[in-house]
Amino acid sequence: MKTIRVVSYGVGVIGRRIAEHLLSKEGVEIVGAIDIDPNKVGKDLGELLGRQPIGVVVSDDVDDVLSSTKPDIIVHSTMSYLKDTYPQFEGILKHGVDTISTCEELSFPYATEEGKAYAEKLDKVAKENGATLLGTGINPGFLMDTLPLLLTGVCVEVRRIEVVRQMDAATRRIPFQKKIGAGLTVEEFKRKIEGGEITGHVGLVQSIGMIADTLGWVLDRIEVEPVEPVVLDRDVRSDYVEVPKGYNAGLRQKAHGIMDGEKVITLDFRAYIGAEEEYDSVTIDGVPPIHQKISPCVHGDYGTVGVITNMIPRVIEAEPGLKTMRDLPLIHATPVHMGRYLG
Amino acid sequence: MKTIRVVSYGVGVIGRRIAEHLLSKEGVEIVGAIDIDPNKVGKDLGELLGRQPIGVVVSDDVDDVLSSTKPDIIVHSTMSYLKDTYPQFEGILKHGVDTISTCEELSFPYATEEGKAYAEKLDKVAKENGATLLGTGINPGFLMDTLPLLLTGVCVEVRRIEVVRQMDAATRRIPFQKKIGAGLTVEEFKRKIEGGEITGHVGLVQSIGMIADTLGWVLDRIEVEPVEPVVLDRDVRSDYVEVPKGYNAGLRQKAHGIMDGEKVITLDFRAYIGAEEEYDSVTIDGVPPIHQKISPCVHGDYGTVGVITNMIPRVIEAEPGLKTMRDLPLIHATPVHMGRYLG
Repeated sequence: MKTIRVVSYGVGVIGRRIAEHLLSKEGVEIVGAIDIDPNKVGKDLGELLGRQPIGVVVSDDVDDVLSSTKPDIIVHSTMSYLKDTYPQFEGILKHGVDTISTCEELSFPYATEEGKAYAEKLDKVAKENGATLLGTGINPGFLMDTLPLLLTGVCVEVRRIEVVRQMDAATRRIPFQKKIGAGLTVEEFKRKIEGGEITGHVGLVQSIGMIADTLGWVLDRIEVEPVEPVVLDRDVRSDYVEVPKGYNAGLRQKAHGIMDGEKVITLDFRAYIGAEEEYDSVTIDGVPPIHQKISPCVHGDYGTVGVITNMIPRVIEAEPGLKTMRDLPLIHATPVHMGRYLG
Repeated sequence: MKTIRVVSYGVGVIGRRIAEHLLSKEGVEIVGAIDIDPNKVGKDLGELLGRQPIGVVVSDDVDDVLSSTKPDIIVHSTMSYLKDTYPQFEGILKHGVDTISTCEELSFPYATEEGKAYAEKLDKVAKENGATLLGTGINPGFLMDTLPLLLTGVCVEVRRIEVVRQMDAATRRIPFQKKIGAGLTVEEFKRKIEGGEITGHVGLVQSIGMIADTLGWVLDRIEVEPVEPVVLDRDVRSDYVEVPKGYNAGLRQKAHGIMDGEKVITLDFRAYIGAEEEYDSVTIDGVPPIHQKISPCVHGDYGTVGVITNMIPRVIEAEPGLKTMRDLPLIHATPVHMGRYLG
């Protein structure tokens, strides 16, 4: 069985979690690591993961790492927007290396005009160099696009799709609790939204775009509602923060795909401290109707590590070009030995 | 956009439902119909569907129908076991026509030694003649294999999978209620099981085989428990039958995939009159753990029509050979115009 040689591009929180998991698998080897953070460059990846050195030193020289290691795949985890990641993908793809990325906008770039332009260029460079490129993760990439699409597979008619993800932020990492403004006054929260310090969930537009395009729905437009504070009528708390009644416990954001004036797709993302239930639900108004729920909701960090890791063999096997989750064979857990289906 | 030309092979209950649905879609045309039932041969398919004639006369001459119509795909719905359907597939495939079938054992023939032998021959004939062959449906084909496999896609570790399908038979067709022995005494039910008049659900073995093989689990064996009667402590009824307390309300069957002596996969199929809740659930003991439920359960007849119809474009697009659901891109509802993604 083949051993898959991986370069980790981006050694932030998610990049490190993925690397940590890959080190626990058989049939896969991390042969290089890339990051621009001067605090990480020159350090051994193992040490950054809080374990023994593994002989892989973080470098900020992409060309040098890729030329010297010649990996089978790059696991890319840096930023959310294509305007930031596009130059990175160009730099990777010219080496002809397959790449899987957590970049949210890459999960379905065709959802916006700007994204389409990036997608065309990336698809061209990927094909010219014989590389495959996929953007995915738990959300976008699975819960609000791939999963509802799969569930439509049993329907003879689909009229409307609604997906809700409700998380109790108290169970998540502290940076996540901070990111959603838990514990702020509503005024402070609104100021941080206006100032761009707090942003909504990135990926709603891409998930709606993927669902609509796959079902052949030509939308009038995608409408993203403003991020809203979540204010509860009781005190709640996490290990990190106290949220008195009337203060902001987190955020909520809805987005809609609108066709012929009707909201035919609604995605509803809620993350706050004190959520009574954590769940992911998909409701399809169709024939037959589908009411599906995963409860508790899929843990985001594990989920991203799972989706990225599990798609690695699929990306390696795929034809060159820019792919999305709806183009590739069914995602599923990979065997402990990841090279099982390869070579 | 291309129009997909279909031949219906098998005009039984499910074959007719699929044909009925196809006639409601755009971009698809039924150009021929095959059945061996002398009561159907020579009749117009439209009339058999209880509508106006559509100019397609049911024939029992496979070669004649396929030579004269040259369809893009055959929708095959005759029998459950490969020993019965194998000669039919051979007869079709030599015409080089893509085929999608509800044959339960075809959904994952590799689950048994006998099935493997059929699969090898079918794959060879399909490839030699440039045709694709897929067996699928709601179950097997979706609820107890494709869906749980997709859900493992978010996991970094999977230890055990349990799938339950619980149906209230009162909501189903009368032949189905009869098939599960509703209203019989427990003695009568057991006699009909022994006599082979009542059989369990066909497909549990195939679904377990697909899950295990896809996850790289090498099973000791697949164990199918005997079909069991369902006896309730209260009277229940449907429009078709009364089931007094103590009589048989339906059936239940469990099957297990056993690895290293442990039941790592359990499928639990329950269909009886008076079920308190109808649901399809998937429970994954893994990291993260997944508790998923579709409630009410997916209606079997609609679901089969949905899965078969929605996979038609995927089968036409696929490379030649025998395929299973885990080999093909994500199933999803097809646009009203089915030819959207073709030609």
